[in-house]
Amino acid sequence: MEVYAVIMAGGTGTRLWPLSTQEKPKQTQSFLGDETLFQEAVRRIKPLVGLDRVLVVAGSRLVEELRRQEPCIPEANFVVEPAGMGTAPCIGLAAVHIAERSPGSVMVVLTADHHIGDVEGFHAALRTAVDAANMGHLVTLGIEPGEPSTGYGYIEHGDLVDRVRGLRVLRVSRFTEKPDRTTASEMVGSGRYSWNSGMFIWRVDRILEEFRSHMPELYDQLSVIGDAVGSPAYMEVLEASWRHVPRETIDYGVMEKASDVVVIPVDVGWSDLGTWSSVMSLLPKDSDGNVVKGRHLGVDTSGSLIFGGDRLIATVGVRDLIVVDTGEALLICDKAQDQKVRDLVKML
Amino acid sequence: MEVYAVIMAGGTGTRLWPLSTQEKPKQTQSFLGDETLFQEAVRRIKPLVGLDRVLVVAGSRLVEELRRQEPCIPEANFVVEPAGMGTAPCIGLAAVHIAERSPGSVMVVLTADHHIGDVEGFHAALRTAVDAANMGHLVTLGIEPGEPSTGYGYIEHGDLVDRVRGLRVLRVSRFTEKPDRTTASEMVGSGRYSWNSGMFIWRVDRILEEFRSHMPELYDQLSVIGDAVGSPAYMEVLEASWRHVPRETIDYGVMEKASDVVVIPVDVGWSDLGTWSSVMSLLPKDSDGNVVKGRHLGVDTSGSLIFGGDRLIATVGVRDLIVVDTGEALLICDKAQDQKVRDLVKML
Repeated sequence: MEVYAVIMAGGTGTRLWPLSTQEKPKQTQSFLGDETLFQEAVRRIKPLVGLDRVLVVAGSRLVEELRRQEPCIPEANFVVEPAGMGTAPCIGLAAVHIAERSPGSVMVVLTADHHIGDVEGFHAALRTAVDAANMGHLVTLGIEPGEPSTGYGYIEHGDLVDRVRGLRVLRVSRFTEKPDRTTASEMVGSGRYSWNSGMFIWRVDRILEEFRSHMPELYDQLSVIGDAVGSPAYMEVLEASWRHVPRETIDYGVMEKASDVVVIPVDVGWSDLGTWSSVMSLLPKDSDGNVVKGRHLGVDTSGSLIFGGDRLIATVGVRDLIVVDTGEALLICDKAQDQKVRDLVKML
Repeated sequence: MEVYAVIMAGGTGTRLWPLSTQEKPKQTQSFLGDETLFQEAVRRIKPLVGLDRVLVVAGSRLVEELRRQEPCIPEANFVVEPAGMGTAPCIGLAAVHIAERSPGSVMVVLTADHHIGDVEGFHAALRTAVDAANMGHLVTLGIEPGEPSTGYGYIEHGDLVDRVRGLRVLRVSRFTEKPDRTTASEMVGSGRYSWNSGMFIWRVDRILEEFRSHMPELYDQLSVIGDAVGSPAYMEVLEASWRHVPRETIDYGVMEKASDVVVIPVDVGWSDLGTWSSVMSLLPKDSDGNVVKGRHLGVDTSGSLIFGGDRLIATVGVRDLIVVDTGEALLICDKAQDQKVRDLVKML
């Protein structure tokens, strides 16, 4: 059995502005060390599949930077999306590329902008997931919810289908959208929900069947594209087909309608690095509770994230503040209000 | 009667760091508009004496920048101090230069790093002071204290000597050092004290006499320097003499010992721009109470000073904060703690 990994690296998150921008989004930046989040994602999956079987999907503008960051991934494995159309077309495009190489293989769909603290646990979960996928299930990794977050979709657990290598494989009863605070508390309290991680594992032939059943318009375009893979006309065909591709997420387009969808709940130190305070929570703090990157001089400064570069940042009488200083812009944000960074970027 | 103005422009204040630095101190920077504080000082005195009679004293490193900022002041009027030795040698040096041109003239000693809101009132006060100086008094302008500040020296008022053009000319009973909070409150409450502004008006022959009586060592060096003014050996003589000049302020060295010292209390919107919040208090605020210079985007931001340049500064959930962004450094400071900027700069 061959296993391919697909890293969806095309996102354009703005919640970590000003470091993450449309031109240089989050996954191409380093927050937690020297590696970028994309490099972290590659390093994480490499031991399981090998670099030859890591596909990367992103827009053409981003692909150049991603290639630069991972020069050992074969050039042909960088799959260009002519335009971002949601996860369903993105995954479909990767699927036809993998089908062309190895139609019976298992495909692991990953994101490039998350952090995973427990890489060994993650590998164990993926091995279980690959086994379950090989049996024909559409597998999603569910994250043990650490708090009643209103920022994620939730997956309701159904019956136990199997236990593989000590992990539960549960039928998915339903996918839910981002809940309100009360509903989220109930869900987390019940113990019957996971966060939707956006990581999926399935056989390539299985997911293409699902596209045919639930998203026939997309499937038709994918078939045309698939026939052109490796031919000189490929880019032309891709661009022409892509104009007819519907904008849709894999959750709405396929997962909610498909049968035999299972979830494997995992607890692997997952973080979506969705806000500056979530970034901060993953970094070591000094004795004043500050996280500092770059040159900093603080007087009466505590609980703050100082994220700068060569330029000196001096703070006086500052508490629980997020300071992010790039060459282009400067963010100063109350830690409790860092979700509002998104509003700010919309205003820009 | 000829009147000369001397602008002491050699200070190296650090409380307005990072805009004010040792290399580009406060007086060479603009805080309140397009003009630098030095340019403000020149514009303020020009109508009273004319640019030909404005002398500027500063260190050699600073003189070049000051000349650039005021190209219409004759080059010979920029008097270089070989080293900053306090206000007594600085004023003495200016005095011998003026004595060389016009020994019986009145000399107005001004600072370059203060703001004066009521320029007409300031002119009226100076006219009175010049008249009093011409009668032989050593005159100091006293600032009506707006609050019991512990940051200034105070001048205790003695008997009324005269009234000139409606302003009181009072004998100085004594100069006091920076008081503690309680003493300051008592002083301000009594109504018998002014802040020591550091602005003095006297006849050149009079102040040189005082140097001879109270600072004979300085006087000797000043005499040597005065004899060399205009000769090719001037710089050499100056540098040699300056090595023997004592470090002293005019307050300690002369004013506290001299007789016939008077104060003219004035209320002319004086501010020493000693802290970022004092700068802020002089600038117009927007509807959220913010003072903004440069590109700024604020969400839930109030009572703050945003002092930047071309680079965008975004703030979220910020109140009563001082943000100063220069090319070299960034200051983020609680408004209530802006006196600590000085400590910070000492640490650098």
